[in-house]
Amino acid sequence: MSAITNHCQLCCEPGGEVVWSNSLARVVNVNDEDHPAFCRVILQWHVREMTDLSEPERSELMRIVFAAEQARRNILEPDKINLACFGNIVAHLHWHVIPRFCLDPHYPNAVWGSHTAGSRQNLPESYWTRFYEELVAQLG
Amino acid sequence: MSAITNHCQLCCEPGGEVVWSNSLARVVNVNDEDHPAFCRVILQWHVREMTDLSEPERSELMRIVFAAEQARRNILEPDKINLACFGNIVAHLHWHVIPRFCLDPHYPNAVWGSHTAGSRQNLPESYWTRFYEELVAQLG
Repeated sequence: MSAITNHCQLCCEPGGEVVWSNSLARVVNVNDEDHPAFCRVILQWHVREMTDLSEPERSELMRIVFAAEQARRNILEPDKINLACFGNIVAHLHWHVIPRFCLDPHYPNAVWGSHTAGSRQNLPESYWTRFYEELVAQLG
Repeated sequence: MSAITNHCQLCCEPGGEVVWSNSLARVVNVNDEDHPAFCRVILQWHVREMTDLSEPERSELMRIVFAAEQARRNILEPDKINLACFGNIVAHLHWHVIPRFCLDPHYPNAVWGSHTAGSRQNLPESYWTRFYEELVAQLG
């Protein structure tokens, strides 16, 4: 396990509103303007790549990512789920979990691509509370 | 397991030059102009989302994705690895595995984002042969 570094934004700050966490990872609401259900799954310590983790750590991190995916599908029924692990700007292991809708502001492009004609798809009431409950249920 | 569909590009075509395959997935060289080491890991049957797979299938698919990541790191020593599973255009489960370099044509943006000042980073000789050998070694 690498030491937490003072120079990394995701070592120093939660990176969003923490919805759920354990000793391995936290799930945060990033309050994305265009994609309000966008969350990130952020490792609790500083590592750059998935293959810097041990195999059990990788498996457990992906289990959390897939639980976040399933929780979103159960509540929102999105047209697609997008998953991504980049870290080109903040090289601290984190996953983007983004429910996508045919009418959202970038569809069918990646959310890092060009805007299209769509608009923000608002969330149902109490979305993040329901998301937390679904996530906990998925993680068992 | 969903049936193969005649309407899906990745059911009808390999989606690139097949470098390695088994009954679960194939790894293809997509011959990307800007990112020559870009490969995709494509499921052998038609499924939209990771959470449509059983847990053992998910784990095995991710093992192949991470083996592709490690193989690239061993040969190229990239500045970062980017992993992504979108499928907004072709909703047949596939992973993008992209070694990134600080001097590549999109860094630090996602490869689906704006071009930057960088240029194509050419591959070492016999790269794909070496990649195949490293991938097989990783998969054990």
